Amino acid sequence: MSEHGGNIYAASQRTGIPERRIVDFSASINPLGVPEGAVRLMRRRIKDLPHYPEPLSEGLSARIAACLGVGEASVVCGNGSTELIYLIPRALKPEKVLIPSPTFGDYERACRHSGAAEVVFYSLRPENSFDLSPEGFIEAMSATAPPAEATGSPAVRAPKPCSLAFLCNPNNPTGRLVRKRDLLKIAEAAVDLSCHLVVDEAFIDFCPAESVAGEVPSHPSLIVLRSMTKFYALSGLRIGYGLFHPSVAGRIRAYKEPWTVNSLAQAAGLAVLEDGPYQEASREAMEREKVFMEEGLRKIGIPFIPSRANYYLLKVKDGPQVAALLEKKGILVRDCSSFGGLDRTYVRVAVRGRADNQRLLKEMAVICTPSS
Amino acid sequence: MSEHGGNIYAASQRTGIPERRIVDFSASINPLGVPEGAVRLMRRRIKDLPHYPEPLSEGLSARIAACLGVGEASVVCGNGSTELIYLIPRALKPEKVLIPSPTFGDYERACRHSGAAEVVFYSLRPENSFDLSPEGFIEAMSATAPPAEATGSPAVRAPKPCSLAFLCNPNNPTGRLVRKRDLLKIAEAAVDLSCHLVVDEAFIDFCPAESVAGEVPSHPSLIVLRSMTKFYALSGLRIGYGLFHPSVAGRIRAYKEPWTVNSLAQAAGLAVLEDGPYQEASREAMEREKVFMEEGLRKIGIPFIPSRANYYLLKVKDGPQVAALLEKKGILVRDCSSFGGLDRTYVRVAVRGRADNQRLLKEMAVICTPSS
Repeated sequence: MSEHGGNIYAASQRTGIPERRIVDFSASINPLGVPEGAVRLMRRRIKDLPHYPEPLSEGLSARIAACLGVGEASVVCGNGSTELIYLIPRALKPEKVLIPSPTFGDYERACRHSGAAEVVFYSLRPENSFDLSPEGFIEAMSATAPPAEATGSPAVRAPKPCSLAFLCNPNNPTGRLVRKRDLLKIAEAAVDLSCHLVVDEAFIDFCPAESVAGEVPSHPSLIVLRSMTKFYALSGLRIGYGLFHPSVAGRIRAYKEPWTVNSLAQAAGLAVLEDGPYQEASREAMEREKVFMEEGLRKIGIPFIPSRANYYLLKVKDGPQVAALLEKKGILVRDCSSFGGLDRTYVRVAVRGRADNQRLLKEMAVICTPSS
Repeated sequence: MSEHGGNIYAASQRTGIPERRIVDFSASINPLGVPEGAVRLMRRRIKDLPHYPEPLSEGLSARIAACLGVGEASVVCGNGSTELIYLIPRALKPEKVLIPSPTFGDYERACRHSGAAEVVFYSLRPENSFDLSPEGFIEAMSATAPPAEATGSPAVRAPKPCSLAFLCNPNNPTGRLVRKRDLLKIAEAAVDLSCHLVVDEAFIDFCPAESVAGEVPSHPSLIVLRSMTKFYALSGLRIGYGLFHPSVAGRIRAYKEPWTVNSLAQAAGLAVLEDGPYQEASREAMEREKVFMEEGLRKIGIPFIPSRANYYLLKVKDGPQVAALLEKKGILVRDCSSFGGLDRTYVRVAVRGRADNQRLLKEMAVICTPSS
């Protein structure tokens, strides 16, 4: 299994620090915690657990569809968006897949497991703040430009276009955003190439105006993934969804396993979806804390990539060492050396509440020399 | 998706009867409900949901291993045993699979999705109460006897042995048990054939002495699946596990998706695993209610297959009609006409608490003529 952030259990075992006392900056979760409405509904629903969940989360899917103004047939819920990341290549059986680099590692793992013959990478470069060029990405999708790196089948590399492309927006771990108008350009090019374009909007809730979720009905090649575990702090419960053109949704459902989304996750999803006050408070708090974090990082001289998400990619001298030193103090950050396309000089840190952020900055000021 | 029991939501939509008032005999769930210890622990753990779950349910796996006297490396937890039913053929990539018929439909679906070239069936016959003959099953695994039915690849059917076999014990929907000594004979034959034998013990908790879970370390071809959703009434939460020889477990983990088992399911699993009083009370109540149900069925003249599980396969004149008539009264039973290997004259009913069982018998006495 590829490495991930958020493993407070392993960190607790390594350090002897109790899980409850570990401050986790390695997973990017809304610091406001589980919305109260979801807590109340889950408590009430525990007594209903002897019943199987709705097999395809029909009630929640209908509510999501109504919220986003898409048809019910377009929505497929998952055991976290992770289920859908693995299900999509399994159902669509792509021959050639395009993945930016660096990005979330499970796209590649999912495609390899599905038996995709070829995975090619589109390199994001530090000298451009890891920004994605829409034109460059379209070229790579069309295979009119040579890919940055290619592995997979040793067969002859005919320049065939990609049949599937992943794009995390804002990107993980960089926090960089592709603007909506540029994304739609890519989506239109994808239609011409008969390429499915998966836009993973796991962290879009902090800049919702840039979401292309509502564009799925008019863009048959577009697939949008949304997570409810980050913005609504439900990581432990697992809940996400995908938006598909109805014809594609049918193929996805044909491969879906029954009952993957547990009943409490479905209930929590219903409770949070239209929780306007929580959403507003979260965005406000995050904006405030991001300003604080950026000022703090500048003050202690740690370079960071400007981010539209609730985390920052930091440039340090030695990522694994920084992560290890902080872990000893009970602070988890994500050493990014396991991300393809990044060297050992990056860590990713979430933005948390004020007291935690202050503590992180203080510890980092001690660990990192001003030049690192 | 194949049909399943337990969909009170669809039944409520069809009938207009509220979900809470539907009495569900179509899913076979312990009528004692969620164990109190699990309820308490889940309520406490809701506040921890911002954290990701342990990625591979390490804590629960270790406790299961200790309970069953197997090594920790042998245990893989799943989002219900359903996750493992689909994961096993995906990871082991069998060429030819043997499945009894009738049995749980998802074994076949999982194998088809994994791209298994050939699925062959071992027919269980009503004239033998659907009993499985160990010798016959071994012959079918070895391909020394012609299979009852075969589909899949149109290629030449060389008599190659199976590389994977499923066996549900007690079987769903018949409730028939293969005795432990016979199962071990099959497991030994499987070793000689290099065939993985999956024994799905989803309903074994009602006859635990017949489990082969403890035999996995000494039988490298044996895989045992256990569900915690039926006996512990946690269907809505999804939790199950598989026991594998450590070398096979490694292959399974290599294909496993991260975080599939939610934190509350892991907590509930820990709470119920050693809840001796609940286990004892459940077995006592079930034994008593099974006697009551069998007497009642005999009295109203409905033939049934003697069962070692918490459900019965009933012989009726018209299964879909019986199910439809009962549904109008707010009672769900499992019409078995969608099971491969069964005709339209069967329904499966769970054993529930006394009042519910009385009501089912009363309604069935009205619906079913004595001869049906």
